[in-house]
Amino acid sequence: MYRAPVEEIAFTLKAVCGLEDVQAAKPHADLSEDLIDAILSEAGKFAAEEIAPLNSVADSHGTTLKNGEVTTAPGWRDLYRRWIEGGWNGLSAPEETGGQALPQMLSAAAMEMWNSGSMAFAIGPTLTMGAIEAIEKHASVALKATYLEKLTSGEWMGTMNLTEPQAGSDLSALRARAEPQGDGTYRIFGQKIFITYGEHDLTDNIVHLVLARLPDAPAGTRGISLFLVPKFLVNEDGSLGARNDVWCNGVEHKLGIHGSPTCTMIYGDKGGAVGWLVGEENKGLACMFTMMNNARLAVGIQGLGVAERATQEAQAYALERKQGRVPGQTGEGMIAIAHHPDIKRSLLGMRSRTQVARAICYSCAHAIDMAATAEDPQQKAFWSERAGFLTPIAKAISTDFGVEVASIGVQIHGGMGYVEETGVAQHLRDARIAPIYEGTNGIQAIDLVARKLPLSGGDHVRGFIGELRDIARQVMQSNRPEFGNTAERLAQAIDDFEEATEWMLQAQAEGRTDDVLAGATPYLRMAGLTYGGILLAKGALKSGLENRAARTQRTVMARSFALTLLCDVAGIKQDVLGSADSILAFDPEVVAS
Amino acid sequence: MYRAPVEEIAFTLKAVCGLEDVQAAKPHADLSEDLIDAILSEAGKFAAEEIAPLNSVADSHGTTLKNGEVTTAPGWRDLYRRWIEGGWNGLSAPEETGGQALPQMLSAAAMEMWNSGSMAFAIGPTLTMGAIEAIEKHASVALKATYLEKLTSGEWMGTMNLTEPQAGSDLSALRARAEPQGDGTYRIFGQKIFITYGEHDLTDNIVHLVLARLPDAPAGTRGISLFLVPKFLVNEDGSLGARNDVWCNGVEHKLGIHGSPTCTMIYGDKGGAVGWLVGEENKGLACMFTMMNNARLAVGIQGLGVAERATQEAQAYALERKQGRVPGQTGEGMIAIAHHPDIKRSLLGMRSRTQVARAICYSCAHAIDMAATAEDPQQKAFWSERAGFLTPIAKAISTDFGVEVASIGVQIHGGMGYVEETGVAQHLRDARIAPIYEGTNGIQAIDLVARKLPLSGGDHVRGFIGELRDIARQVMQSNRPEFGNTAERLAQAIDDFEEATEWMLQAQAEGRTDDVLAGATPYLRMAGLTYGGILLAKGALKSGLENRAARTQRTVMARSFALTLLCDVAGIKQDVLGSADSILAFDPEVVAS
Repeated sequence: MYRAPVEEIAFTLKAVCGLEDVQAAKPHADLSEDLIDAILSEAGKFAAEEIAPLNSVADSHGTTLKNGEVTTAPGWRDLYRRWIEGGWNGLSAPEETGGQALPQMLSAAAMEMWNSGSMAFAIGPTLTMGAIEAIEKHASVALKATYLEKLTSGEWMGTMNLTEPQAGSDLSALRARAEPQGDGTYRIFGQKIFITYGEHDLTDNIVHLVLARLPDAPAGTRGISLFLVPKFLVNEDGSLGARNDVWCNGVEHKLGIHGSPTCTMIYGDKGGAVGWLVGEENKGLACMFTMMNNARLAVGIQGLGVAERATQEAQAYALERKQGRVPGQTGEGMIAIAHHPDIKRSLLGMRSRTQVARAICYSCAHAIDMAATAEDPQQKAFWSERAGFLTPIAKAISTDFGVEVASIGVQIHGGMGYVEETGVAQHLRDARIAPIYEGTNGIQAIDLVARKLPLSGGDHVRGFIGELRDIARQVMQSNRPEFGNTAERLAQAIDDFEEATEWMLQAQAEGRTDDVLAGATPYLRMAGLTYGGILLAKGALKSGLENRAARTQRTVMARSFALTLLCDVAGIKQDVLGSADSILAFDPEVVAS
Repeated sequence: MYRAPVEEIAFTLKAVCGLEDVQAAKPHADLSEDLIDAILSEAGKFAAEEIAPLNSVADSHGTTLKNGEVTTAPGWRDLYRRWIEGGWNGLSAPEETGGQALPQMLSAAAMEMWNSGSMAFAIGPTLTMGAIEAIEKHASVALKATYLEKLTSGEWMGTMNLTEPQAGSDLSALRARAEPQGDGTYRIFGQKIFITYGEHDLTDNIVHLVLARLPDAPAGTRGISLFLVPKFLVNEDGSLGARNDVWCNGVEHKLGIHGSPTCTMIYGDKGGAVGWLVGEENKGLACMFTMMNNARLAVGIQGLGVAERATQEAQAYALERKQGRVPGQTGEGMIAIAHHPDIKRSLLGMRSRTQVARAICYSCAHAIDMAATAEDPQQKAFWSERAGFLTPIAKAISTDFGVEVASIGVQIHGGMGYVEETGVAQHLRDARIAPIYEGTNGIQAIDLVARKLPLSGGDHVRGFIGELRDIARQVMQSNRPEFGNTAERLAQAIDDFEEATEWMLQAQAEGRTDDVLAGATPYLRMAGLTYGGILLAKGALKSGLENRAARTQRTVMARSFALTLLCDVAGIKQDVLGSADSILAFDPEVVAS
């Protein structure tokens, strides 16, 4: 069961996350309200009516590998065909090759709904969109001419090949190699693992983007190049030619996202896979990184999408399932569990986390759009920094929330939640990968403290904190009694976040890298909670008066988040500031006894 | 991979949880150190060598239902035979019927290890032990004579039949009925769901304990009686007679514990299942409740057992898996991830949570033993209250920690953790049921605030807090620099816990039941964190000097827990005291937009 929350999404885009700024940018000048609403409503319809019903089917069937060919779940091929026909694949792709060049904000909103429909389905097109971006930005004119149109339409799909058994979080250990053939092509050799949609039956061709080393390349990450390796070579006229030497020799049996084939890919077992260089030699990682921000945001959106669906299902169940009575209940019989105070707490925890994830992900997309469209160089630099700053937060907090929300959803369903037929356990299984891939959430936290806090000498994050203060002040000045002491709690959280930020900046300046790293994960958590609390409050401030009940509930959500989750921030600050010594003193080789 | 942590368990029993008090009690006078160590070591051996290797086998095979008969996983029957031969089934059962009448503390310790071996296996005998207890305390002499010996030896297994589709957390809605036949027997009719080991091939007979209503019984929970219904009737000579009218007509497809068959049981479809009353008419729930405490503790121990195994596997992996470098690292190449500060934090979080769960569960078992053996009525009353007070905390915090630890374990394994072959995702799937069954953790929290805090007019919990203060004072007075500011953090947490406790007591006294219920879950969390922090510090205080490295690591664990997890307590107090209004204002029928 999934109903696309189009109104809530539109409200978040417009009232909370600044879609109007993006509409005002020259490239999006013809993006009218009507067009926006139509896109959201149609994307939601496709998600709810076409994708969502196949989510559990794909979970129970998974994919099958036979003779190197992967068969997807029943209905999956038809679904993908309708996906292409609907033109959804090219939503954010450039117009020149058939895309619609819509802003990332709208793409993020649509992606949320597709992931609510099925994370295992949505991840395929998401990777293709990443491939389009990498090719568009870095590949030669010839490669673009051959591949971009078909990838944009969805006739072919794309993959990302980074991980090898010995090289996961640390890509410097990568061993796949590429030998130049003297004719502009290369032969690629090596094994890649965890390749999402590495092999499948949805499209006639698959375009692999592969990281590998050239002969005599420098060691480490500065010796990695990016190659395009198609499953079938493409003839001059665009028709498919010979089968390339890239083969799937294993599909993982995973905890979740069973509908998505996770493949082990062998390159060059029969003489070498033919590939073409994308971007410059030894600059492959940089090429990958240009799209890494978007890919990380996309994973954050997976957490959001699953959280939204889990929340809807838990709420529907809690309104239907009757057990026990509540204090002061009049009338006979049992009452729906949604009215029990402890379940209300759980439902609020699900809804507020979901809405926080949404507002943070859309804000990150907003920054990406602003960076892409700004004409003033200072503005462009500012928004690039903002996108960089928000990306690890959006990725990590949304995927952590995805797992937390899915787990609360299981709990609300009680014993029924533990039974697979109910479908809510799948959300927990699916969501659990998102904190891991595209850079673990630990890596995100390290990226935030080590690379993003120092932006503009620390002034970027300081400015960000100033923006948060402005909103907290508006909450204070709104004088709306329903806010209770939300404003005080927000102000306190901002103070704590600021103190932890300055501590981090100083530790870094003093070269206490270990201290910075030991506190990275809780620091990211407090950043996400504080920003989330502010965005919820902003939503409550902006909520119109046309629907008084909804406005009240929006304020209830902001207030309860401030009182039940944001109150963690003070303790987390203590953790960041005080725990490094004890953590670093831990010797994992000694078993305490 | 599982190594029974026998030394750690013995240390916790003896130095932290007061096993010597139990040894000093008359019934356990001959429980020597040697005997204790032998039992722990043998139980650990059985868990590690016999049970643990079959855990993932049973996970992938599950159980099969065919023509009403359930087949368990390959190797499971042999394992159970060796279990019986080892005499493990009667560890805590009375001596009269062949048990060893060991204290609950030792039973808890053994049970931890069996659950580390396989939660899906250990749960079967656990339920049999519960059935033994119920029969021993409430059944007639004749029923005892017929059933107790074979249940104690393990030749037959026992089950608990409470839940029906409309009656889960709220048993007042129960509909199964029992018709007296005038000959001392009853005919039982109805459907029971989620019956663990309701049907299987491990034993020739299965003894079901079933809650049902007599004709004209009062409505609600005061009209429920308990019946014993064997799968096969038992002849005078103890041999098996006719097949009884109780049938399994479905086995759930669950998220985890696949090795344990979760059955739908149909009573009386062919004329009525023959049953015998256990205890008095309409007092069935009271009979169930006498063993409920032990059963709830047993579920807490499941969380503990899975947490220990997940921790061991994550630590082993983190010491083996090399990625990246750490600041100041000398030498070439990548370093084991266990040495990265962020992974150290994760490992410490796993270890400290596991040790907290262990110390709280064993302390709860200690209270149960003391209540059972105390001769002085005041002492008996005191320890009964303590057991009652600690049980919901032990159940809820240990099972929540079980899920948290298993999830961190998946995260540390990265992509490998998401692949089922690695085995660590199973721990997360298995652990996820424990916060749900035997009373959801929400129900535990409500039990704690509504029934346990008011014990002795609130003086029981006040005395408990006084005990915590004593230990915090000892930490302060120890003057060991390795403790850092652990003592201050403990004292602060106790202050916060005390303030929240008094708030709860007052809210209850003033009839603000809604406020009490709205804050129940975070209140239980802060109780568990505070008590856990104290027990870890106590362990560090008691750690001998014979192994300086281990003692240091024990202090590191206590200190890091105080700095990274206990620091949540201040925020949770704010939540308990301040969030009720906003939670109760949530209207689940209104969708915010």
